[in-house]
Amino acid sequence: MKDSVNIGLLGLGTVGTGVVNVLTANAHEISQKTGVPVNIKKILVRNLNKVRNIAAGAVLTTNADDILNDNDIDIIVEVMGGEQPAKDYMLRALNAGKNVVTANKDVVAKFGRELFSAAEANHVDFMFEASVGGGIPIIRPLKQCLAANKLSEVMGIVNGTTNYMLTKMTNEKLDYETVLAEAQAKGYAEADPTADVGGFDAARKIAILASIAFNARVSLEDVDVEGITNISPVDIEYARELGYVIKLLAIAKESEACGINARVHPAFIPLNHPLAAVGDVFNAIFVRGDAVGETMFYGRGAGALPTASAVAGDIVDVARNLRHNVNGRILCTCFDQKPFCPVENTSSSYYVRLLVEDQPGVLAAIAGAFGAHNVSLNSVIQKRKVNNCAELVLITYHVSDANIRKALTTIKDMSVLTTVQNVIRVEAQQID
Amino acid sequence: MKDSVNIGLLGLGTVGTGVVNVLTANAHEISQKTGVPVNIKKILVRNLNKVRNIAAGAVLTTNADDILNDNDIDIIVEVMGGEQPAKDYMLRALNAGKNVVTANKDVVAKFGRELFSAAEANHVDFMFEASVGGGIPIIRPLKQCLAANKLSEVMGIVNGTTNYMLTKMTNEKLDYETVLAEAQAKGYAEADPTADVGGFDAARKIAILASIAFNARVSLEDVDVEGITNISPVDIEYARELGYVIKLLAIAKESEACGINARVHPAFIPLNHPLAAVGDVFNAIFVRGDAVGETMFYGRGAGALPTASAVAGDIVDVARNLRHNVNGRILCTCFDQKPFCPVENTSSSYYVRLLVEDQPGVLAAIAGAFGAHNVSLNSVIQKRKVNNCAELVLITYHVSDANIRKALTTIKDMSVLTTVQNVIRVEAQQID
Repeated sequence: MKDSVNIGLLGLGTVGTGVVNVLTANAHEISQKTGVPVNIKKILVRNLNKVRNIAAGAVLTTNADDILNDNDIDIIVEVMGGEQPAKDYMLRALNAGKNVVTANKDVVAKFGRELFSAAEANHVDFMFEASVGGGIPIIRPLKQCLAANKLSEVMGIVNGTTNYMLTKMTNEKLDYETVLAEAQAKGYAEADPTADVGGFDAARKIAILASIAFNARVSLEDVDVEGITNISPVDIEYARELGYVIKLLAIAKESEACGINARVHPAFIPLNHPLAAVGDVFNAIFVRGDAVGETMFYGRGAGALPTASAVAGDIVDVARNLRHNVNGRILCTCFDQKPFCPVENTSSSYYVRLLVEDQPGVLAAIAGAFGAHNVSLNSVIQKRKVNNCAELVLITYHVSDANIRKALTTIKDMSVLTTVQNVIRVEAQQID
Repeated sequence: MKDSVNIGLLGLGTVGTGVVNVLTANAHEISQKTGVPVNIKKILVRNLNKVRNIAAGAVLTTNADDILNDNDIDIIVEVMGGEQPAKDYMLRALNAGKNVVTANKDVVAKFGRELFSAAEANHVDFMFEASVGGGIPIIRPLKQCLAANKLSEVMGIVNGTTNYMLTKMTNEKLDYETVLAEAQAKGYAEADPTADVGGFDAARKIAILASIAFNARVSLEDVDVEGITNISPVDIEYARELGYVIKLLAIAKESEACGINARVHPAFIPLNHPLAAVGDVFNAIFVRGDAVGETMFYGRGAGALPTASAVAGDIVDVARNLRHNVNGRILCTCFDQKPFCPVENTSSSYYVRLLVEDQPGVLAAIAGAFGAHNVSLNSVIQKRKVNNCAELVLITYHVSDANIRKALTTIKDMSVLTTVQNVIRVEAQQID
């Protein structure tokens, strides 16, 4: 039985510093829960001379080998981010018989299978609670608490930057460029904001969640991705009038008829849906299962301490396992080969905003084009004049993605159409 | 390494039937996750002749010894409810080296320490995820995912019956008696509704949550309990006007200065608090930690299948442990002896509704009595005439419970006072 657990920390940026601070501040409680002291033995940094606001004790090094080759280190905690060299370091650690805890969604979403296999072969733990939803407990609840459910849907607000931006656009009626500039000034958005506003960060997270929820392997390339760059204040205002709010959703659904569909896109959600009230940088993940019904997990999806909370929770688990020499038990549950449902075969309601010529018979012509492709209209609002054109806002009934695409292709060729301003899905399934 | 896991089920009521159905419907996925088939071998029932809507396979018996003395049974699943004989059966099972999974909040809240000790001594698992919040994952997230946090607050809507009633009173402006009768007609409330409306069900649950959150031992008798029987439509309407909603909250807080305080009472919560939107029979538990910040867990707090989801999740965990022969690792974390903070030493804002004589100088006299006991008033509204009396609605600033009690004692003796209609705490701490 081990009498202490040693950690090698890869990275001492925002999250790494948070991990050091949490393990230091709560060392007493953590050692009581694990039964052994948990020490940070070595930390990989880029610059040895930088002044750092952390408690002393660990050795800093710029050489990963000092950590990966240290036989006294039991757990490698990877918080450097990015694909490489993080992935190679983790793989080397697993193959050296070390347990790995990571916050790295990029690596888990892309190389998860390889890392799981290495962990399994070496009878060590590979844990990644912090890779999705920051401090929100979601990986372990899916893998353990909800393990007896057949899950049909995981739907979340999993990117804090875009949720902050959309909340700001909604509450203060600002446009996209203004809120992006503000998010960048506050440090919520990167100088190149593509990963966030383009939906790719959310796509990596839903790939991870879908893999666990459906016991399958879902990778980034299996996710259809659309970001928030096309959302205008007008769309948000129409959503509000119709009883909805616009959120960037990461959605994974499995149906017996079609298989797994995973996608990220802005969506109208009803104001009474639990996700509708999730504002600012908060994240939330909504899960539907055959036994549990609907459940939701809410909290801070990013930030040094919330992410460190999840990393340190994993460390506690690995340390408990080390103490009892039982690492490597709960590994990949991605045992099923499942078909993917092409987005064309999915269905939902749609919000469509069009600019058309302002003359008699146009509405009938547009409605006729939708009808010809089996797209029924739930409501049509003709609101404003824009540059001498009429603005039409349509909400369809539940229709297939293929049919709405065909209808829009037809409409785009019609002489009465000026532009298709926006097309946004309506995720209307209510809580029972 | 075991090649199958056998369950003895104690009880085949609503939850027991749910457990059988979940384990049967999802048997394939569960055996893949645990690595072994999970069989229900025997079921304790009261009446062998009752017609039952479950899949066949298990032997029914009315004799608990048939199950507790069966050496082939690895896990006892207790879903009979009530204190006895459930507690004795579980204790016998643990002492016989069997793992125990239970949904029984009464027993866990009252006899948790004894059962944990027995589990520890016998190196077996004792799991109770279903005892709080039905299908909502909360016990395991607190014990594992948030294990590295110092938690300062757990606050939840943990009783579906009263939440249904208060939601109905709020949305439909109905009175207590009407919604109670309706809840009873729907089967949400018992013929004797005391356990729910009196707050005792919620008190048991917060005792369990507080024990885990604060690594201490909090029992039912440590919880101050007040139910919803005094809540009138008028209070709900004033709450709405002031920007609040009334919920029955189960609250546990720990402060370094005073210790642990656990209580159940109706409270005003701001409309923008995440708990404010939790309606009907849904439950939610809000947790605040030094690293994670604020997090919330939402879902169905009762019902056959949601509760069975939690029970079956525990069964999956125990079965995984059995397969690797590593049961009995994560047990009671109630290692700390901590002081309790008497309710008089706690503080909050208060809503106070008084009927007073409708004459000049009365408001000044009442305000003076509050001031004499260091109770500052944030706002005073004089709204209605009731039977020739004036109704005063006061919201205090943050004051100690002791001071508001003293002020009210003084006021009750004043000749201008007709009655103190209600006093309700305001849980106003905002999300940062």
